[in-house]
Amino acid sequence: YIRNSRSIGSSASVLERSRARTRYKGLQGFLTYNTGGVTTGVFFSGSPDLASQVRHRSFVMAAKTANNLVSGFRKCVDLCNDAAGLRGTYIPFEVEGTTVGFILPSFASHLMEHGDVFKATEAGLQLSSDLATPEARTEAVANVLAGLRDCGLVPGWRDELFPVATSFSAEPALLIERAAASLFGIKAYGVHINGWVRRQDGSRAMWVARRSRTKQTWPGMLDHIVAGGQPHGISPTENVVKECGEEAGVPPALAAAARPAGAVSYECVNTDGGLKRDVMFVYDLELPEGFAPEPQDGEVEEFFLWPVERVMQVVAEGGHYKPNCAIVIIDFLMRHGYVAPEEEGYLELLAGLRQGECS
Amino acid sequence: YIRNSRSIGSSASVLERSRARTRYKGLQGFLTYNTGGVTTGVFFSGSPDLASQVRHRSFVMAAKTANNLVSGFRKCVDLCNDAAGLRGTYIPFEVEGTTVGFILPSFASHLMEHGDVFKATEAGLQLSSDLATPEARTEAVANVLAGLRDCGLVPGWRDELFPVATSFSAEPALLIERAAASLFGIKAYGVHINGWVRRQDGSRAMWVARRSRTKQTWPGMLDHIVAGGQPHGISPTENVVKECGEEAGVPPALAAAARPAGAVSYECVNTDGGLKRDVMFVYDLELPEGFAPEPQDGEVEEFFLWPVERVMQVVAEGGHYKPNCAIVIIDFLMRHGYVAPEEEGYLELLAGLRQGECS
Repeated sequence: YIRNSRSIGSSASVLERSRARTRYKGLQGFLTYNTGGVTTGVFFSGSPDLASQVRHRSFVMAAKTANNLVSGFRKCVDLCNDAAGLRGTYIPFEVEGTTVGFILPSFASHLMEHGDVFKATEAGLQLSSDLATPEARTEAVANVLAGLRDCGLVPGWRDELFPVATSFSAEPALLIERAAASLFGIKAYGVHINGWVRRQDGSRAMWVARRSRTKQTWPGMLDHIVAGGQPHGISPTENVVKECGEEAGVPPALAAAARPAGAVSYECVNTDGGLKRDVMFVYDLELPEGFAPEPQDGEVEEFFLWPVERVMQVVAEGGHYKPNCAIVIIDFLMRHGYVAPEEEGYLELLAGLRQGECS
Repeated sequence: YIRNSRSIGSSASVLERSRARTRYKGLQGFLTYNTGGVTTGVFFSGSPDLASQVRHRSFVMAAKTANNLVSGFRKCVDLCNDAAGLRGTYIPFEVEGTTVGFILPSFASHLMEHGDVFKATEAGLQLSSDLATPEARTEAVANVLAGLRDCGLVPGWRDELFPVATSFSAEPALLIERAAASLFGIKAYGVHINGWVRRQDGSRAMWVARRSRTKQTWPGMLDHIVAGGQPHGISPTENVVKECGEEAGVPPALAAAARPAGAVSYECVNTDGGLKRDVMFVYDLELPEGFAPEPQDGEVEEFFLWPVERVMQVVAEGGHYKPNCAIVIIDFLMRHGYVAPEEEGYLELLAGLRQGECS
């Protein structure tokens, strides 16, 4: 495709230019847009159509200069992947010879006290083969966990069941109380919705929720307009509509316009010491300028509408957003052109968004 | 976030529902949209706003039923990753102790005839440490390759230099003729532009190029509106504007609206037997309905504008698109909501889009 051929003889000057990757020269007939010496856009000289594009890039670059955008984003991704290299700390949890989770030895020792349900193996822990059906396994494990809950060993009981399976498509080997998901290191799924607004001037804004200060997890932190665990028995798309209504008062007719846009996956150490192996289905929901979400149930304190550029700065700064929301927003920013491929570490940042097992 | 609690006692019925993952029941107050027994959308009963959404889904599902959409996509991804597990066939190529490529032993034996440039190591091949600068390495390797080209061992000479580096951000150890990139198994970069049109009825269409039947590679196959290798010395964004003009007559003012949207990476065995380790920067370019691209130089035979749903069917059917274009289009479809997370294999398909080293 490239027809600008260069002779080998000119390799030195090409190298010269290559070293100056951060100091690209403009192509003939173009104006390059520079901030801090980095070319982040190319514009045809004098085109007024591009004023808003330039304004947008300008904001992006101001954020970059102030906060070191990609390196701030990278920290968010790393924070969500702090279990990298720690798999060896956990022992495999098997059902019928297949590893479905990873457990801390200290928690496994509590489980092993129930020898009719959990058996030690050479490498880890397995469910008794006497439990031959998903129903039998679900019931037996539930009984053990209810006892451990009463001893305070399974905090944050939800009365909600998550599937235990090797992948989202696979048949579950059993269902397990949500609060124990990371204690067993099983894969857990959720839906995160980027609620955004296209403003008349072409700029974009994103709805931000502030979590209630009395919420058990991440109180007072910033969150998506809507996000939630993926319960069993309904599809992710159905879950999006349900959560939109329950959490933000988004009417189903609006919520149904949410478009799936991929997934983000990560592995971190949970507050209970367990391995949190999460896959978040990501949706983009374009909302009309006139619509405002409303807190429904005391879980969200308030909703803001912020320019995407402000969201970006706040994410890069770190410490304000619930960590998994931060990486879903980074995914949004990368999919929608808010981060330029010429930024150092762009590809590594992108790869980091699916660092956990994506299946 | 989930407040629909269920008691452990009801686990059997939850399991029942979970097994029926492909037969979700509609939530109260909603109509689910089914085709072939698969719920792919949820719509509020009787909302006329959603007619076009329903039409869109209907088309998607028709394609799915006809062609087994995700499994067709999966074949495209696998085709681009046919080197998976073959790394052992190649020997590492090192510069100053760092592996920057992978070479077939048969090609390495030709290189080793030039003992002043290439040295055998215990595990592979390295550049002579006498070549201490990027310029010296570039020139020495160019001289060897020119000789091999004259013997017919480096087909398709381009007179264009690619950087040899561990990642896109890293300083290149040397530059090397593009035609030899896969013979050395170095990482190569490119830009692919999804040129799409938002029609008045809300549907979307995508520009398709048919490659010239006289083109050396993939003659007559379908292609992106614009795509090209990433040459050294200009940024990907500059390259997009340059290629848009050269390949499709897209004026710079229009081309500058292209938004970066991530990257796709894969590893395949090239026609020369070498290891093709490609990272494609992906851009979405929304074009006005009135604009039509024009073949500029005989590389493209003609341009079509197809409904995205038709592009989707043709990609899933396989054999029509240049393979790496197919996976960039799959990435577009997944980012823009054309594939539903409840489709079996959705997450594995997504993970497959960055199966090659993304750095």
